[in-house]
This record gives sequence, structure tokens and C-alpha cells, in this order.
Amino acid sequence: MNKKEALKIYKDQIKKMQAYYLAMATLGFDRLTIAPKDGSDFRNEMISVLDGEYYQVQTDPKFVEAVLYLAEQDLGKVMNRDVYLAKRSLEDVLKFSKEEMMEFSLEQMKGNDLWYEAKMKDDYSIFKDQLIKLIELSKKKLERRNPKKPSYDIFLDDFEEGMDQKKYDHFFSLIRKELLPLIKKINKKKGYIDDSFLYLYYPADKQALFMKDVMEYLGYSSSWGYLGVTEHPFTNGISRNDVRVTTNYDEHNIASAIFSVIHECGHAFYEHQVDPKYDDLIYIRYMSSGMHESQSRFFENYLARRKSFFKLLYPKLQEYFPENLENVSLDDFIRAINASQSSLIRTEADELTYPIHILIRYELEKDIFNGKADLNNLDKLWDNKYEKYLGIKAEKVFDGILQDIHWSDASFGYFPTYALGSAIGAQLIHQMEKDLNVDELLEKGKFNKITAYLKKNVQHYGALYNFEEIMKLATGEGFDPKYYIDYLKDKYTKLYDIK
Amino acid sequence: MNKKEALKIYKDQIKKMQAYYLAMATLGFDRLTIAPKDGSDFRNEMISVLDGEYYQVQTDPKFVEAVLYLAEQDLGKVMNRDVYLAKRSLEDVLKFSKEEMMEFSLEQMKGNDLWYEAKMKDDYSIFKDQLIKLIELSKKKLERRNPKKPSYDIFLDDFEEGMDQKKYDHFFSLIRKELLPLIKKINKKKGYIDDSFLYLYYPADKQALFMKDVMEYLGYSSSWGYLGVTEHPFTNGISRNDVRVTTNYDEHNIASAIFSVIHECGHAFYEHQVDPKYDDLIYIRYMSSGMHESQSRFFENYLARRKSFFKLLYPKLQEYFPENLENVSLDDFIRAINASQSSLIRTEADELTYPIHILIRYELEKDIFNGKADLNNLDKLWDNKYEKYLGIKAEKVFDGILQDIHWSDASFGYFPTYALGSAIGAQLIHQMEKDLNVDELLEKGKFNKITAYLKKNVQHYGALYNFEEIMKLATGEGFDPKYYIDYLKDKYTKLYDIK
Repeated sequence: MNKKEALKIYKDQIKKMQAYYLAMATLGFDRLTIAPKDGSDFRNEMISVLDGEYYQVQTDPKFVEAVLYLAEQDLGKVMNRDVYLAKRSLEDVLKFSKEEMMEFSLEQMKGNDLWYEAKMKDDYSIFKDQLIKLIELSKKKLERRNPKKPSYDIFLDDFEEGMDQKKYDHFFSLIRKELLPLIKKINKKKGYIDDSFLYLYYPADKQALFMKDVMEYLGYSSSWGYLGVTEHPFTNGISRNDVRVTTNYDEHNIASAIFSVIHECGHAFYEHQVDPKYDDLIYIRYMSSGMHESQSRFFENYLARRKSFFKLLYPKLQEYFPENLENVSLDDFIRAINASQSSLIRTEADELTYPIHILIRYELEKDIFNGKADLNNLDKLWDNKYEKYLGIKAEKVFDGILQDIHWSDASFGYFPTYALGSAIGAQLIHQMEKDLNVDELLEKGKFNKITAYLKKNVQHYGALYNFEEIMKLATGEGFDPKYYIDYLKDKYTKLYDIK
Repeated sequence: MNKKEALKIYKDQIKKMQAYYLAMATLGFDRLTIAPKDGSDFRNEMISVLDGEYYQVQTDPKFVEAVLYLAEQDLGKVMNRDVYLAKRSLEDVLKFSKEEMMEFSLEQMKGNDLWYEAKMKDDYSIFKDQLIKLIELSKKKLERRNPKKPSYDIFLDDFEEGMDQKKYDHFFSLIRKELLPLIKKINKKKGYIDDSFLYLYYPADKQALFMKDVMEYLGYSSSWGYLGVTEHPFTNGISRNDVRVTTNYDEHNIASAIFSVIHECGHAFYEHQVDPKYDDLIYIRYMSSGMHESQSRFFENYLARRKSFFKLLYPKLQEYFPENLENVSLDDFIRAINASQSSLIRTEADELTYPIHILIRYELEKDIFNGKADLNNLDKLWDNKYEKYLGIKAEKVFDGILQDIHWSDASFGYFPTYALGSAIGAQLIHQMEKDLNVDELLEKGKFNKITAYLKKNVQHYGALYNFEEIMKLATGEGFDPKYYIDYLKDKYTKLYDIK
């Protein structure tokens, strides 16, 4: 095999894998949005058959040989990285048979479906056994992937290359130490900020109309995007020019959909703004979860919670809901959407308490994968953590252990990237403020200047670099959580007039 | 190879093919409903790669060997038929290479996209070259499939097993002879029935609400169905329990969406009510187009144009649109939705003029594939036929040659099944009236009795039999177009008081 032959095999096989990826991503979007439920058993079975087909393409001996050969060559920065990531993925995949992969995929989809049913019926028992099964299966998978490494570290590295428990422990200990005291003080000032008008009745169809304005403001275009509705909001990058988001309308919480749409649009721009020259590759197009979260939370928090962001949008919101907002000034609205109080739902938590939700999940996952958690009592353990850190307890499992979709398809190790992403975002906005007049751009509706900046400094790289390297390129220094801690302490101390 | 081995290979391969089919059907639905347009080039390319993968599964030498072996065995009625249809399909497919199949699939999708663009811009020149290309490619395909058979006959047989130009010529000559004189007489009585209120302003969102009532009345459930919106309405049977339909809202024609939804629901029930024991097969689940159209037009015309059908639904329609319908009685509404006049759009034509739209397409397709049509002037030829038979001419290509999607993906030979299906439907309703009190069931909202009857007498068979055989089973006699001609002549002579 020479370099030219190997590259041809590599590219041909990548093209096939892209086709399967596109099909699976579309099927995934479809099953979570509009697919009729009676078809789900058959659909899930067929999807697992396609997983098997994908496995065969990915593990085709010719392709494996080409990857191993190319990993030893110098192919230039881009191809070196793509091949490196391909090899890393293959090394894991090859430890499993096609049948094992298909079975796992089926169990994930079953988990999804049972979680949804359990959540809708507010009955954890519907999902419990499947969750335990997914944990056990995941443990076995990890054991096989690398018996020497602490299993949870493997997951952490999957979602954020280079991260492990040691690094996250340090990160979360800062959060615990620096933020929990402030949270306690602010919890005592309940009612200091009036945000009651956010929880009046906001009909979903009118909310949907406002979302169009929001997406237009952001420049999220229907020519490459689409907004669907699901129980759990998500972004699905089917291809660079087909990046879909979903939201969920809570008719008694106007902030919920607004910030979830903005959040997902942050993800969407990342997928859309990867360098087009990577279009015929795969691995280099998969960004890490932490970097992804940094972009979504950048939109959601570091931009959209500002007065300047809502200067143009708020009057439109008032027009849709005069009965609720006519007498609420922009300043009052901005204070309300920044109010902080301990609450049960992660996706609706304010910026300050948000990382505590993640801390809780991180500690639970650590215990689960280090064998310290009683799997029969995960719902109780969940509630205990909420009581310990935030002083509150869910009355319904709907608001407790069933609130998030992630565990239902065995996405363990994903949660910590949410907090990491928030911290990355804080460091990025600190840099962006030096380079751009952010408030002026937002006020004037020039959001395209912001997305262009993000494209140039972060997004176009795709997965060419890991997050530490991207941070160095974008800010001139390595990742440092102090920006995040400082930002939150400064913002909330002032907002709540804490001495 | 023994029978057991061959059957195992057959079933394993069928399962894979089902998985690809599900993916392709979902991708097809997605691309016509919500997929963002900027992603279409990449998406189309990926779909053609999957077509290539499907081709490889279908033409796997082991599978081919198994099919040929099984075709010689007695496997019982169901498997005999499935294997027969598999062999029939394989014989065609094997005449082409994977690359040729992929190329053709790409050209079809390109045709779809260009047609849509051309239609939206009302500019035939955008689509013209691609249409000619698809015709030339189709001719070459037919030549290779069977150089001895008149090429158009092959297409006619594809969509309706056993049909050819000779049989259709006879059928359409009846239509020409028996119906055209009546149509001319009725055209002279323009204004005899007042249907102007159907063309007032009916906002799409309110129409959509009424469609929910219609679907509930029909028993088309969201647990196995879904209603989307597309330029050209269609039904997509992704699996037996996932059968989706689409419609298009014309805000100045309330009948358009109502009858298109009912029509597509007729198709949907057929897909849904095929015997579940065929779930793990493919070919026997593909019903002929003529039989399919018989079920859709059964719903649309033989049931939904009756007063009894609207007894429960019309008051709801009035509630949504009091400004338009408050003073329109049920009788007046029923007369209006049965009014007949020559018009340009096939999908919105009344029952009487409808088959003339099909006759026109049939004659054009015959000329195209028998080498008698000037491909550079298809738009003119289209207009001339409309002038000749219906005395009208489209002012925009939007209403002329661009109105239908079918040619854009090279579905030549499909159109005639629309008229055939209407004729089959007339014969079926004649039989059903003997077996059931149709009007009473409709009036009382017992539509489930009707669908149960259709399931038992027609739909559960799937493609176990061809349409002539099903007609014998369902009505005790072979297909006879006289029921159709008699029905139309009787109905419209009375309605328009023609002597």
C-alpha cells in the first residue's frame, strides 16, 4: 500500500461513512421530533441494523489497514489530525463485534423511549431497570476499552479530549468553594428581584412567532437550519448546511424557550461555521462537547442576558404579549432574566446556580462508575444531592432524575462539559470584549459581526485542535477557570448588592 | 444450497434491505418537508451513496443465488409471491451497475429540486433540460431492460402489474367517448352551481385545525401517522406503523386541502392495514399504484363527496369559518364540492373532468416514449392537449407542465394508474353499497366500519395478488370500467339536470 492508494481507500470509505452518518442523524432527528410512536420498535430495530452496516464500513479491513498506514505518514496538519482521530475511534470500535454494537444501539434507543414514557408519566420505575442496564453495559464497554484506566476517565476524555477526573475535581472544587457561599447568600434574598411576570401565561403559538424574530436576529437561517419541538431541546448537525435545533415551549415560563433556542443556535453556528474544506472528512468535523457548550452558553449567557441584546428584541416580545409585559421595562426584564435562586431544573437554571446542577451530576456519575453508588437508589441519591447543595428537593421525578435525556442513551461523561463550556465561554467573552464593542454590535443588531468573530477565532477550526489549543489560539493563554468564577462573583454580587 | 439455508439468506438480506428502505423513505420525507435547502447538494450525494449501498445488498451474489433457488421451490402462497416479486425486481436491477443506479438516483433528486425551483419561479427553462435528460436516461434504461418490448409498456407494467398500452388505450377510449360529450355540456352550464364561497379567504392555520377534525373522523391516528406540508401532497409509508401524509394549504380554496388530506389518508390506511405477518418481508408490501389510487380516490370521491360524510364535519368547518360559511347550508356545500368545470390543475379537478387530465398525460407519455413527441416543446404539447380536450390553456407554466411532481423524478407511467384507480374505486363502492349501509355509517361517524371493510376485502392482502385478482376477491368479478363510466354519467347528468 502506498500513500496514494491508502488515501483513496480512506476517502472512499469516509464518503460511505458520511452517508450513513447523514442517514442516522436524520433518523435520529426524525424519531425525536415527528416520528409516530407505534413505529418505534420496528424503526429502532432497523436503525440498529444500519448501525451494524456502519460498523462494517468502519471496520472494513482495507480501511483499517489504510488508517494504520496513514497514521505513520505526514499528510499535512488537517489530514494528520483526521487520521489520528479516526485511529483513536477505530481502536475502541475494534474491541467490539458488530452484534455487540447493534445491541448497544438498540438498548440506547430503548432507553430513550422508556425515559420519555417514564418522564411523561412521572414514574421512574418505567425507566429504572433500563438505566441500570445501560450503566452495567457501559461499565463492561469501558472495561474492555481500557482495563487499566479508571473507567469514568475514559468517558470524560471521550467528550472532552484531555479531560479526566483529576482536572474536573480541581475545577469543581473551585466552583464549590467560590460559588456555594454566594448562592446561599442570594437564596436568602429571595424576592429581591421581581421575575414573577416571566411565569404568567404565554401561549406556545405566540412564543413560536417570537422565536422567529430571535432566530432572525441571530442570523440562524431556514436555508441551513430548522426549529423543531421536542421534550428535551437539542441541536442536530446533519451536515454543515443542515443544522437543526429543537426547543420546548413551557406556557408558564417565557424565558425557557427563549434561552433554549438561543443556546441551541449557539451550537448550530458552530456546526455551520466549520471550515468547508473539511466537508469531505468526518472526524475533524466532530467538535468536543466542552467547546460546543462554550459556544451555546456563549450565546445564551454571555450575550443574551445583556440589555444590549434585547434592545431590539424586547419591544417585539412586548408586542406579542402586551397583557404580560406592557408595563415591564427593559431594565426590569433584564434583571428578571438574570435573577438567581436555587431551582430544580438544570436547563432553566440561572447562570450562578447552573454549575451546581452539573456538579451534582458529576459527583453522581463518578460514584456510579467508581462503584460507590447504589444503582437501586439513584433517584434518592439525586434528591439527596439537590438537598445538600441547593437546599431543595423535587416533588416529582419529572423534575428530579428524569429531567435530562442524557443518561437514557448512556451519554455518561457528557454533563461535566456543560460547566466546562460555561467556563470556556467566560474566558472567550473576556477576550472578545477586548477585540470588539460587543454591546454596540448587539444594540445595533449586528450579530453577524459576532458570529464572524467566533468563526474566525474558534469555530472554523472544527476539531483540528483540542480545546486547550483552541483557547490558546483564541485568547493567547490556556484555559483558566478564574474568568468564570470572577465573572459570576462580580455579576451576582453587584446584582444582589451583596457586601 | 438447501431450502432452509436459502430462506435464511433471503430473510437476513431482506432485513438489511428493509433498514435501507426505512432510512431512504425517512430521508425522502425529510427532504421534501423540512430539510433546509442549502444542505441539498450534499444530502443528495449522500443519498445516492446509500442507493449504491442498497444496490450492493440487493445484488449480493448469495442473495441472488438464494432468490433464484427459492423461485423454483414451493414455499407457500405468501413466500412464493414475495420471492416471485423479488426475482422480477432483481432481473431488472442486475442489468445495471451500481454506478449507473447511483447516477440515476442523483439525477432524479436533481430533477426534483430543479422542478421545485422552476415551479416556484414559474420558469420552465430551469427544469426543461433536466426533464429531457431524465426522459433520455429512462429510454436507455428501458432499452436495456427489455429491448423487445415497447418501452412505455414496461413502465405501465411497473406501476400496475399486467397493464400495457393496449389495455389502457381501450380504457381511455371509453373515457374519451363517454365522458367528453357530457363534459362539454356541463361546461356550457357554468355557474349552474354556486361554489364561489369555496374560494374565499381561508387562513392556513385554521384550515390546519379543521384537518385535525377530518383525520380524527377518519381514524388516521398520530400514533401511526403524521401530517406534513409540501408543495405536492403525498403519502409516505415508512413502515406499517409509520405512514405519513402531506398536504398543501391554498388560502383561497378550502376544498383543496380537505380533499387532498382525505385522499392521502386513503393511501395511508392501505399501507397501515397490510397484514402484519408481512412485516418482515418487502416485496409483498409494495402495492400496485392503481390499487393504491383506488383506495385514496375511494376516500376522496366515493365517500367524502357525499352529504352523509359531512354531516358531522361540516358544522365544525362552519365554526372555523363563520365569515365564509355561516349562511351556506350543508346541501349547498355538497353541491359546490361536486361542481364540475374544466380546470387546469389535476389535483383539484372534479371527479368528472379528472380522468381527462390523466388522458392528457397518458397521451403525452405515450408520444414521448414512442418517439413521437418533440422533447423541446413538451410545454407547448401540454398546453395544446389542454386546449383540445378541455378548451382551456394555462397562463403560467406553474399551472401547466410544472404542476405535477411526477416527471421530475422520472415516474413515467404512474399517471394512468390515477384514472385506473378511480375506476377500480367505482367498482368497489358499488360492491360496498351491497354489503354495508355506507351513508348510515358515515352519518354516524362510524368510519372505522368502512376501514375495517376495506382492510378485510382489499387492503390486508398487500401485493399478494395483482389488481385483477383482488377485484375478483373483493367484488366477485374482474375489473370492469363500466362502473366508473356509469357512476360519473349518472351522477353528473342528475346534478346538472342534463337531458
